[in-house]
Amino acid sequence: MLPPDQRDRLDVVLVSPRNPLNIGAVARAMANFGFEQLGVVAPYAEHWREARSAVGAPELLANATESATLAEAVAACTLVVGTGSLTYRKAEQPVVPLPQLAPVLAAEFARGGRVALVFGPEKHGLTREDLSYCHVLVEIPTDARQPSMNLGQAAAVCLYEVAVRTAQSEPAPQHPGSTAPSGSLERLAGLIEETMTAAEYSPATMQAANRHDLRLLLRRLRLNAHDTRRAMGFFRRVLRRLLQDRS
Amino acid sequence: MLPPDQRDRLDVVLVSPRNPLNIGAVARAMANFGFEQLGVVAPYAEHWREARSAVGAPELLANATESATLAEAVAACTLVVGTGSLTYRKAEQPVVPLPQLAPVLAAEFARGGRVALVFGPEKHGLTREDLSYCHVLVEIPTDARQPSMNLGQAAAVCLYEVAVRTAQSEPAPQHPGSTAPSGSLERLAGLIEETMTAAEYSPATMQAANRHDLRLLLRRLRLNAHDTRRAMGFFRRVLRRLLQDRS
Repeated sequence: MLPPDQRDRLDVVLVSPRNPLNIGAVARAMANFGFEQLGVVAPYAEHWREARSAVGAPELLANATESATLAEAVAACTLVVGTGSLTYRKAEQPVVPLPQLAPVLAAEFARGGRVALVFGPEKHGLTREDLSYCHVLVEIPTDARQPSMNLGQAAAVCLYEVAVRTAQSEPAPQHPGSTAPSGSLERLAGLIEETMTAAEYSPATMQAANRHDLRLLLRRLRLNAHDTRRAMGFFRRVLRRLLQDRS
Repeated sequence: MLPPDQRDRLDVVLVSPRNPLNIGAVARAMANFGFEQLGVVAPYAEHWREARSAVGAPELLANATESATLAEAVAACTLVVGTGSLTYRKAEQPVVPLPQLAPVLAAEFARGGRVALVFGPEKHGLTREDLSYCHVLVEIPTDARQPSMNLGQAAAVCLYEVAVRTAQSEPAPQHPGSTAPSGSLERLAGLIEETMTAAEYSPATMQAANRHDLRLLLRRLRLNAHDTRRAMGFFRRVLRRLLQDRS
């Protein structure tokens, strides 16, 4: 099993879960495999209340953190792993089959990183925007005739794999994570976006698409905390100059 | 993933499942990982009907076989694997942690065997008698503070492990299975029991305990079909003589 100091550096994040039974099932699987850090993004208030007050609900539900956006929920994480079935879309990030996830997590834990395992809503899974916060997508190998898993069961399978196989695994020499926490990358992206605007780099209609691509790019570059700080300093300077020139 | 001819030689057997949602969840996990053979032992009639008629129930539920006893349900199987948490009792069979089950199943499939994966009722799991039909027990490694898993989630985790890891695994050189189907071992056990009675081997009060030990012994001996036939012939002969002497 995973040593406690690594277990505590894994956040399970549920984006807008709908069914209280599923929320309870995810929490139970977490307790079964020794994980305690649950984050919930924009839950349906009533269902969330119901899940937390259910008889026999694991204690970790009471301690779960709630946030309005996925960006907030994963701000402290250096490796964000999205889950879901990729049957109907092409991934914009590296895809790792679940049985090969262990070396990636082992490497991230070895260098002191913090991992988020993100699950989408029951009906349609994570959106393209949600996925843009992910360094890597993990796919559970399922039968093509019935690829889509129940949320509680998918969580149980992922957490089993992580708990059992990460500790035995050699860290992957190169992997899709980044040592800069997700929150720093978001601040850098914001600054670059301001710079784009100030430089009139592209029309306003392109702003959302640019932001999306930028988010993916920054995660693909594997920037560490030092890189991120330097890039911030550089873009702050550029931005100040651009704004001075204009005034 | 497991090749289809091996997938079709794995039976999932539920003993007296109670919650229709759990039955549906097990069926769904089976469909996710490509398994189709479901057997149900002594189900609660109403809950079983409800599970089968649920909206979106996988087709394999309609084709599930129903039997009155576990002995019947696993009669054709050469390796019967019991599941459950062993926190409160000592196992009478070899225990294999789930992450080490693959080589055992690979060996059994390689020699043409048929495997049953048996799950007990939600509340208390498999009884000691149920377990006496099992060649081996599999244990999912869970946290000591919350060892007991939900039925649907336990099934998902087991089936994931079997589907993903068995095909890649080297068959175990020696493993706890037997090439004689469970039904033949039961017939042999019945004959030995008759012989015990005819020979006045032990008092009638010991009969249940003897039967239990005999069942465990026959599974531990790893008898193949040929051994079993010879033993049957031998005990038939002994029994006939014993009964002749008496008359």
